[in-house]
Amino acid sequence: MTEDLIIRDVRPMGGAATDLYIRDGRFAEAGNRKVAREIDGRGQVALPGLVEAHTHLDKTLVGMDWFENRVGPTRNDRILADRKAKRELGINARRQSARQILQTLAFGVTHIRSHVDVDTEIGIANIEGVIATREAFKGLVDVQIVAFPQSGMLGREGTLALMEDALKAGADIVGGIDPATIERDPVRHLDAIFALADRYGKPVDIHLHEPGELGAFCLELIVERTRALSLQGRVMASHAYCLGMLDTPRQHALIDSLASEGIAVMTVGSPSAPAVPLRMMRRSGLVVASGSDGIQGTWEPWGNGDMLERAKYLAQRNGMTNDADLEETARICTLGGAQGIGLTDHGLSPGCPGDVVLVAARTLAEAVALTPQRRTVIRGGRVVVRDGVLSGDLPDAA
Amino acid sequence: MTEDLIIRDVRPMGGAATDLYIRDGRFAEAGNRKVAREIDGRGQVALPGLVEAHTHLDKTLVGMDWFENRVGPTRNDRILADRKAKRELGINARRQSARQILQTLAFGVTHIRSHVDVDTEIGIANIEGVIATREAFKGLVDVQIVAFPQSGMLGREGTLALMEDALKAGADIVGGIDPATIERDPVRHLDAIFALADRYGKPVDIHLHEPGELGAFCLELIVERTRALSLQGRVMASHAYCLGMLDTPRQHALIDSLASEGIAVMTVGSPSAPAVPLRMMRRSGLVVASGSDGIQGTWEPWGNGDMLERAKYLAQRNGMTNDADLEETARICTLGGAQGIGLTDHGLSPGCPGDVVLVAARTLAEAVALTPQRRTVIRGGRVVVRDGVLSGDLPDAA
Ligand SMILES: [Zn+2]
Ligand SMILES: [Zn+2]
Repeated sequence: MTEDLIIRDVRPMGGAATDLYIRDGRFAEAGNRKVAREIDGRGQVALPGLVEAHTHLDKTLVGMDWFENRVGPTRNDRILADRKAKRELGINARRQSARQILQTLAFGVTHIRSHVDVDTEIGIANIEGVIATREAFKGLVDVQIVAFPQSGMLGREGTLALMEDALKAGADIVGGIDPATIERDPVRHLDAIFALADRYGKPVDIHLHEPGELGAFCLELIVERTRALSLQGRVMASHAYCLGMLDTPRQHALIDSLASEGIAVMTVGSPSAPAVPLRMMRRSGLVVASGSDGIQGTWEPWGNGDMLERAKYLAQRNGMTNDADLEETARICTLGGAQGIGLTDHGLSPGCPGDVVLVAARTLAEAVALTPQRRTVIRGGRVVVRDGVLSGDLPDAA
Repeated sequence: MTEDLIIRDVRPMGGAATDLYIRDGRFAEAGNRKVAREIDGRGQVALPGLVEAHTHLDKTLVGMDWFENRVGPTRNDRILADRKAKRELGINARRQSARQILQTLAFGVTHIRSHVDVDTEIGIANIEGVIATREAFKGLVDVQIVAFPQSGMLGREGTLALMEDALKAGADIVGGIDPATIERDPVRHLDAIFALADRYGKPVDIHLHEPGELGAFCLELIVERTRALSLQGRVMASHAYCLGMLDTPRQHALIDSLASEGIAVMTVGSPSAPAVPLRMMRRSGLVVASGSDGIQGTWEPWGNGDMLERAKYLAQRNGMTNDADLEETARICTLGGAQGIGLTDHGLSPGCPGDVVLVAARTLAEAVALTPQRRTVIRGGRVVVRDGVLSGDLPDAA
């Protein structure tokens, strides 16, 4: 049992100033136990731990040589270049995942869902590397691992068996990839990954870049399989650009059917990809999560993994400038993400794990608009980042 | 005559490491004069001064209370809200413009073109305020002032006369605003502002949000007037979203005719507005400049004025991830902007003014992708920012 922690003078989600109490690692009502530790929040905005609901920890090049990108423009160019780079650069998944986790912990990211490549060249080596990192950061940053068939599954014999090996080794979630444009057989791909999820009792998370009505059809197949296998609340569609490419009645119908099966949608708010109808999605009760996708990798050179900056991207992509909208995107990057990846007790209320991020802003909207740095991050009542500086006793990324 | 300055070990535009010499405020060949001052560039990327080709210095709320935005979604909602806010918040154009200039100088912005509101409520008070700031920063940051009829001109009697007053008071450029959707009479609006430009011998810069073929028609009218008045090289179309809303042959034709009259296009790479065809524009020889537009104002809550981050926005909006494309967006935010606002000697070559920005990156593409902070900024051979810290003897923003 650790000492109580009182965090004085903070404003939960930008609301009225108050004190937060953490006891035995969880938020608690104000108590009368002798208090040993206090933090002065200086009126900062207090957020629950930021949730990174979609990234690729095994592929970041953070801290490595600059990767000179001369890759062609198609998705297939990129998949090939990515595989070649993995081979030639010798990316160490364990070390690189730790580097990204430390970088994003400084921003306040306490929970991460990462897709991790499984293919017939690398096998499950990346899965094992990220599992080692997951164990090293236990209790500090929670990592969920999606076994992700980046190079395709149906067309590369042995991949499905490797996916199964990944689950046995400790992967948490079954990943899928464009069932039509990459896999060339939407029914067979989705049947295979849903069967795997059913057999191992695991959630599903599918990269879905399919455009327009093709994407809509794939979403319908996903809805049908979620219902048939009673996987409500355990399926995520990542990107789902098609939702931004349909007419309004079709959008409504699809979004309602996703919401009714508890299927979450993850969107990164990419400036160059179709914008999904964020307001409509949230109003319909759909769970919306967000993520950075790849950070400083062979696909895209940028990204820092700051999920508060991600909230800004979501707002900017959707032309949102109102405070209420910015507050909503902040919720997507905390509570929405938590719900999307299956956390049941994320928040600042008594009983929730004592995770909090302090941001020097006057309002929640300002926190999103200006994404102030030098945050303080508390995990389970332990101060792991103080004014932007990581605590000295964290695992390293050697 | 000041001492020579040698900047050792820097990589101009990310190229091979070299030393840069500044003599009497301008870049020079290596000389044999006794050198009194040296800077160790530590292998950083050296850029010419960053060029902010489109902002609104009189409207930033930087350093003021948080503006809670509950404004409706239309452009007219925003124009009304903006005018109301100016009245109620009492924005001091002189002080606010100085604040923004200091903030962006720390990023390396040495040249700024700012639109400044002229209307029948405030008259030319904002013009006078920004002129005072322009004088205060002379030789440190160059400011061009566009007399901008934000609230409309044809529909508000007296505005045209105020525009003329603004030019007499010292404004540098004649501004225009959506000739059809706001002014309701494209020919009359454009005739009026081009006549003013002709009479006072000033350049023209037009906010053009008009969509699709309406915007294309307005661009044609601008081309015709530029040709008729021999204003080649002195006209800028700001935003010109319509270029991103036409089919390819129409895009080509319009862009070619803009290029042939030396009309520059300014684009901010807004994530929610149509993306103009950046590659096509540059290939055609069109001058492309970029800007932040409003920073932390009543229109949009975000923005920091960093024109290197702006290069990242341009790349992201256009789905560019290759190093060559990122290098191109860096050129837009330095050399392109310079050409767009009419500077004739911007660059790092002997004879150019001794303005340079040092960025801690391994390549030019990395500088764009990661926008490292703590830059060093040299203006006319004077170190005005060292590792992100402004020199102590700059004008203040009191
Ligand atoms: Zn992904
Ligand atoms: Zn503007």
